[in-house]
Amino acid sequence: MIVRPRPHWLYLLFVRRGSLVHLILQQQLFVFAVACAVVAAHGQLFHWKVPLNASPFSLIGIALAIFFGFRINASYDRYWEARKLWGSILVDSRNLARKASTCVAPGSNVRPFILGIAAFAAALRNQLRGDPAQRGLEGLLPDEVTARLAPARNPANLILLWLAQGLREKRAVGRLDPILAHSMEQNLDELSLAMGGCERILNTPLPFTYSVILHRSSYLYCVLLPFGLVDAIGLMTPLIVCFVSYTFFALEALSDEIEDPFGRAPNDLALDAIVAGIEASLREMLGETPAPPPRPDENYVLS
Amino acid sequence: MIVRPRPHWLYLLFVRRGSLVHLILQQQLFVFAVACAVVAAHGQLFHWKVPLNASPFSLIGIALAIFFGFRINASYDRYWEARKLWGSILVDSRNLARKASTCVAPGSNVRPFILGIAAFAAALRNQLRGDPAQRGLEGLLPDEVTARLAPARNPANLILLWLAQGLREKRAVGRLDPILAHSMEQNLDELSLAMGGCERILNTPLPFTYSVILHRSSYLYCVLLPFGLVDAIGLMTPLIVCFVSYTFFALEALSDEIEDPFGRAPNDLALDAIVAGIEASLREMLGETPAPPPRPDENYVLS
Amino acid sequence: MIVRPRPHWLYLLFVRRGSLVHLILQQQLFVFAVACAVVAAHGQLFHWKVPLNASPFSLIGIALAIFFGFRINASYDRYWEARKLWGSILVDSRNLARKASTCVAPGSNVRPFILGIAAFAAALRNQLRGDPAQRGLEGLLPDEVTARLAPARNPANLILLWLAQGLREKRAVGRLDPILAHSMEQNLDELSLAMGGCERILNTPLPFTYSVILHRSSYLYCVLLPFGLVDAIGLMTPLIVCFVSYTFFALEALSDEIEDPFGRAPNDLALDAIVAGIEASLREMLGETPAPPPRPDENYVLS
Amino acid sequence: MIVRPRPHWLYLLFVRRGSLVHLILQQQLFVFAVACAVVAAHGQLFHWKVPLNASPFSLIGIALAIFFGFRINASYDRYWEARKLWGSILVDSRNLARKASTCVAPGSNVRPFILGIAAFAAALRNQLRGDPAQRGLEGLLPDEVTARLAPARNPANLILLWLAQGLREKRAVGRLDPILAHSMEQNLDELSLAMGGCERILNTPLPFTYSVILHRSSYLYCVLLPFGLVDAIGLMTPLIVCFVSYTFFALEALSDEIEDPFGRAPNDLALDAIVAGIEASLREMLGETPAPPPRPDENYVLS
Amino acid sequence: MIVRPRPHWLYLLFVRRGSLVHLILQQQLFVFAVACAVVAAHGQLFHWKVPLNASPFSLIGIALAIFFGFRINASYDRYWEARKLWGSILVDSRNLARKASTCVAPGSNVRPFILGIAAFAAALRNQLRGDPAQRGLEGLLPDEVTARLAPARNPANLILLWLAQGLREKRAVGRLDPILAHSMEQNLDELSLAMGGCERILNTPLPFTYSVILHRSSYLYCVLLPFGLVDAIGLMTPLIVCFVSYTFFALEALSDEIEDPFGRAPNDLALDAIVAGIEASLREMLGETPAPPPRPDENYVLS
Repeated sequence: MIVRPRPHWLYLLFVRRGSLVHLILQQQLFVFAVACAVVAAHGQLFHWKVPLNASPFSLIGIALAIFFGFRINASYDRYWEARKLWGSILVDSRNLARKASTCVAPGSNVRPFILGIAAFAAALRNQLRGDPAQRGLEGLLPDEVTARLAPARNPANLILLWLAQGLREKRAVGRLDPILAHSMEQNLDELSLAMGGCERILNTPLPFTYSVILHRSSYLYCVLLPFGLVDAIGLMTPLIVCFVSYTFFALEALSDEIEDPFGRAPNDLALDAIVAGIEASLREMLGETPAPPPRPDENYVLS
Repeated sequence: MIVRPRPHWLYLLFVRRGSLVHLILQQQLFVFAVACAVVAAHGQLFHWKVPLNASPFSLIGIALAIFFGFRINASYDRYWEARKLWGSILVDSRNLARKASTCVAPGSNVRPFILGIAAFAAALRNQLRGDPAQRGLEGLLPDEVTARLAPARNPANLILLWLAQGLREKRAVGRLDPILAHSMEQNLDELSLAMGGCERILNTPLPFTYSVILHRSSYLYCVLLPFGLVDAIGLMTPLIVCFVSYTFFALEALSDEIEDPFGRAPNDLALDAIVAGIEASLREMLGETPAPPPRPDENYVLS
Repeated sequence: MIVRPRPHWLYLLFVRRGSLVHLILQQQLFVFAVACAVVAAHGQLFHWKVPLNASPFSLIGIALAIFFGFRINASYDRYWEARKLWGSILVDSRNLARKASTCVAPGSNVRPFILGIAAFAAALRNQLRGDPAQRGLEGLLPDEVTARLAPARNPANLILLWLAQGLREKRAVGRLDPILAHSMEQNLDELSLAMGGCERILNTPLPFTYSVILHRSSYLYCVLLPFGLVDAIGLMTPLIVCFVSYTFFALEALSDEIEDPFGRAPNDLALDAIVAGIEASLREMLGETPAPPPRPDENYVLS
Repeated sequence: MIVRPRPHWLYLLFVRRGSLVHLILQQQLFVFAVACAVVAAHGQLFHWKVPLNASPFSLIGIALAIFFGFRINASYDRYWEARKLWGSILVDSRNLARKASTCVAPGSNVRPFILGIAAFAAALRNQLRGDPAQRGLEGLLPDEVTARLAPARNPANLILLWLAQGLREKRAVGRLDPILAHSMEQNLDELSLAMGGCERILNTPLPFTYSVILHRSSYLYCVLLPFGLVDAIGLMTPLIVCFVSYTFFALEALSDEIEDPFGRAPNDLALDAIVAGIEASLREMLGETPAPPPRPDENYVLS
Repeated sequence: MIVRPRPHWLYLLFVRRGSLVHLILQQQLFVFAVACAVVAAHGQLFHWKVPLNASPFSLIGIALAIFFGFRINASYDRYWEARKLWGSILVDSRNLARKASTCVAPGSNVRPFILGIAAFAAALRNQLRGDPAQRGLEGLLPDEVTARLAPARNPANLILLWLAQGLREKRAVGRLDPILAHSMEQNLDELSLAMGGCERILNTPLPFTYSVILHRSSYLYCVLLPFGLVDAIGLMTPLIVCFVSYTFFALEALSDEIEDPFGRAPNDLALDAIVAGIEASLREMLGETPAPPPRPDENYVLS
């Protein structure tokens, strides 16, 4: 996630970070070259003047903009839903920790349980990012539990099961009222819901065909556009074509990036920071001093 | 569902799979033929020059794009809601399994109950896809239960009833606290809610009339368009007409495909993979080794 | 609701059912006549040439399309919300029946209670459609209860009250644990919520003024349009005007139809079929053989 | 709320009620006068021909339409959310009444409690509309409670508190199981939620700046538009300008009206009718005969 | 938040407050200067006539408007979600206070608990606005608790924990039934959910890249636009360019402002007033006389 104070409007025009230029430079150069060639040939292809003008491009361009608007909207909804799911992981982690501290009979040692919640968040992050299963779990789980997770396909789910077993033990010895156990089970259900939501977003991309149709239409559009403009605006054709294609290509690249919000691209979610925040919040509730929050790197990217 | 790493932008322009070209080839050829005929006749129909130009088409085209945008949006909402419902089936299956493992008194045999949850998912998939009622249920349900399902109209619902009877038995012998039984009933309610949602999407298409109006308008549009363009862009008319009609027809075909997301078209939901994932997740919670996850076929389609 | 397999694309162009042509024929003929008169008079009104061209119509037309898009969207949201509410009635009916079967102590006669749930759905359908209050309740409710419903303003609500009284009786004699009674009360709350939602949609149309503004603007637009087109496209004016007005009028008629989704127009919800499905589902859970599902009539309409 | 059967399409063109014409007549006349003056001066301002044509207006007009579409959408969402909140007040009033009748031990007098729920709805209506705090509360609350409400800033909230005290008394004497008290507390929570939602909509308008930008842009647009059209369409300029401005101004006026849906404008919610409906529904559940429902006045307005 | 009665339509055209003019004056002047220079040079750049006309700008402008529409929509969703979250804090504060008054056994002193809820709201406001942690907490929390909050990273969360400990004490001495404690824990969960939602909105801006693409495209657009218009509308170019750029820049500035709704800009949420409202509502429930509600300042801004 790119975290920076909003720069001055003038500076914002020339900022290079976050502009995705590097991702679409190749495509832009290609379109620019086509436009220049069309201008140089005065709109001729093999000595045949291509008879095109601006009016069909106006129609098609607006239609494409409408469909792109939908694409961006759908990608952003995925991004924002993913963020909401991680927000609910933070919330239910705190709720579980609060109830562990106050609903279980005083004198019980609930510290392992509360750190186990932080371990759940870390394990889920590892699953979503394809990180090694043990990353960031040190000190949060008993060793024998960590060992059991190694071969698992879904370690975070097994941590939830382990947490529930902890509740059962408290209940069995009468240190937890069944009704309050039910209350904590509801929070475990919420954590499970958030995990399932993240898996859903990870495993189900936007319909591939939709991306293909839009991609193809926008490229064909940008390649044909110079023929439609050259008679009217001559030497300005490459500039305008690059302007149009920048808008389309950059939005497509951004959509691609936030469509899978769990990756490590600059605009993806800062899962590491969120996981660290969950652990810090839980430790603070335990009366410990949390580690300082992670800082964005020199490119303003928080990973 | 088409699952593939995003190809290079250049390759994406020529990918054949997932472009729906085969579905709309007939229509495209028809429109192309009309456009060619119009060009050949210089826009005349029975020696009468059809007096049309581009400006009304610009208006109608944008209006159509707006209405198509709504259609795609509505179809995609159905698709994504269906995916969410199956996500919630996964989540509540895990939650039920977790509670069966930890809320029922230790020493109870909850394995049949947990496998029964996987049977629910498989039976629901069979209902939604019109598959044989027994498909994939082997080894998940006791034989006498499977036999009772055969003649049923809604076997998945009967499996829920059977699961609830299992809870009643545990409760009757004092192995399950009523409050925790209530907690598990809530998850059964959620499974029932997801089942009802899937039935709703299956049984209630988008209003048929809406499809008719859009279909008719877009075809009439593409057939008239060459008359509007031929004077201005001459020989390029068929290309532009095919471009416009490709966008409209392909989006319509895609909308049709994802409108009923439970089918077996390439962009439909990968219900088989989801059901296998639910069974694997439950078996992992039972301490068993789950089967490896299904792989997409050579066309990158996961069924 | 129109239920039919999607016809071939060519056939779909000429399908008469579901195209709403009969509803808007009068308006279409009126607009067509105006357009023909304008062409015949060469755009003159009382020997005065009306000075109009296409460009303002392009602007206004797109603005109208945007506002129509919103109107359709809002109508469809009402339609789909109504469908969801009836879906939740099905779901909570099943949930209540499941809990009645498994949470009430064995040996209790819960059949009247479960059939009473089906009666609730039928009574609500009657209220929403203005049907006679007793329609379809035969055999589902005890006679003395049916008699009490006759003069009521809101019979479905009284059935819910009667169902709750049934729960109270079971609880009073110790055949139902209070916590499970609470669980069933939650489902009664959900049924009440769905009923309230249906009443809300029935009683609160889209703001009348919005319909008036759109209606007026689109008619004025279609009447003025021929003056704007006649100079440019001459004899084709009536065709294009009819095309534009068909899209606007048909979408307006469809919006009107699905705005009140509980009626008996072809695109309205198939409440009879849904109510029959609820009864069938409940009877199947009771171990009875349900009646076969209703079929669409010869016009593919399911009422 | 305007409640009327949909008039014939021809009649709808000339209906005066509900067209907001009276609200925007002044603005319309102003714009009309400007347009006439521009036509009379042949587009000159102080003998200087203003060089404008239609093309920039097409662009700006569509942009404005898009932003207006958003504005209407946001206003309608507020309107519809407010309606949903009042729908949930009806639903939870019934649920509370049902539970009061069946969950409290038989023989208790729950009539004051149930009438108190109706009083809550009336008091909330009074708060939202700025009506006198006592309006419509006669006979619903004990006198000493009504007296306590008079000086309160938020009487509806105090009624909820009073209802909860009623539950406490029943619980204290063993006539209400704690678990069922919890069930009823949930409905009180829902009533409180709906009250909070209504206060939120009342107190937080759409961002004022957004209204200013749109208002200013649309007026500037309508004042400049005649200069852009006069050369092309001459005498028809005032008609077209009035057409465009009617659409913009009327939609703005409607947005304003439904943005605060609790007022007394014709398109606002019929809170009086809803409150009467709640009281009627509760009285019917008590076995009393409810008052007949209110009728719209001669302008089809239900207040 | 700007709170003012809607001014007369004529006055609204010239209102300076709330028009954001001061924020975008610099940019506007820059664009105006460019447009004037282009007019003065008759569209020449270094004696070379830039060959541009209006048609590509029409296409790009509408595409930009569509993308801006999405941006505003997303910003407004954040603003409105933030308002809903604070609404739910009000609601759950009242619910908790109601339950503290009626569910805890009579005779308990629940005043510190209820004032602690108000302290939660104030502490959350402080966190979101970066205010000093103690601001507004005087008299609401016991001193030793306030002292513990000072060094905390998340004081509001610790207040929730402290409230839950209060519940535990009541439960431990038998003054609070576990089931009703569960009921109150649910409200604490809701408060925690609202807090997490606010943190999410605060910490996760719209994707920075999206802002960059839009910002850059709209500036480039406004700088090139004069070249496209100068041949057609000559001296009116600067006016029209300023009109277009005002709409784009003002909407961008507004989006920026409401994107982070917790700040102190005029269109941001009136958190101080909301917090005061929560305290007033709770004090009224305690039978105390609340402080009068805060008034907007002379610029109609409620902070």
